[in-house]
Amino acid sequence: MTRFNSHMDAAFVQAQAAAALGEVPVGAVITLNGQVIAAAGNRTRTLNDPTAHAEILAIRAACDVLGQERLTGADLHVTLEPCPMCAGAIAAARIARLYYGASDPKSGGVEQGARIFAHPQCHHVPEIYPGIREAQATELLRGFFATRR
Amino acid sequence: MTRFNSHMDAAFVQAQAAAALGEVPVGAVITLNGQVIAAAGNRTRTLNDPTAHAEILAIRAACDVLGQERLTGADLHVTLEPCPMCAGAIAAARIARLYYGASDPKSGGVEQGARIFAHPQCHHVPEIYPGIREAQATELLRGFFATRR
Repeated sequence: MTRFNSHMDAAFVQAQAAAALGEVPVGAVITLNGQVIAAAGNRTRTLNDPTAHAEILAIRAACDVLGQERLTGADLHVTLEPCPMCAGAIAAARIARLYYGASDPKSGGVEQGARIFAHPQCHHVPEIYPGIREAQATELLRGFFATRR
Repeated sequence: MTRFNSHMDAAFVQAQAAAALGEVPVGAVITLNGQVIAAAGNRTRTLNDPTAHAEILAIRAACDVLGQERLTGADLHVTLEPCPMCAGAIAAARIARLYYGASDPKSGGVEQGARIFAHPQCHHVPEIYPGIREAQATELLRGFFATRR
């Protein structure tokens, strides 16, 4: 299924830039009132930081731009289903809407496994729109891992 | 129940320093082969960063010290049960042993709610030692929130 989401283009650019650095190709963009306020790609290897997933870096950058610790009303667009760590950060940041590409049966934490947003210990649940450019997102990851085998 | 854990002393010092800044009092210390390599307290407000929990900051600092993105063999000592975000980061960092103080029924992600380490999407499970100085940890949090009501 393909749904229109122009900000996902920018997330894919971030994912491709990550791949060029040998990082797992995941990209994220945060928008507020339709304007991009932060964009980031995965940098765990480059930064020697296991928390440096695209979503975490984008959230930290967006908070820095706004000078606040919550992103109330903001949208996050990411090429892959967030892992539990990132889903937890999305809740903590009070992201309003989460758009993502491919599901991640291996490591995802939204629609499988920990299902971060499905527990009372989660204090904020965004609107969730999965499957945005799913085929493109899946192909990007498959291509990356194929070249590394 | 009180168990001996000298590194938890340092985690409490970090928690108290966080409280002095108006932050929720949580502190974390990471050790490798018995030596402290990083210590941090919660700084979400000070840094305008919803990901700046004590555990995340300590993990990032420890990785920076070691120049690597995994903390294989390291121990993390934290005054409160980690939230889902932090538990995910602990798994990503390959922390060997997790020692924590108070359980957190409201926001915890280890022994309740998302139970991060209980799913096949979690690729590393540390040894877990809960209830270290539990009464002290609970009292620290209760005292902090009592002064803010």
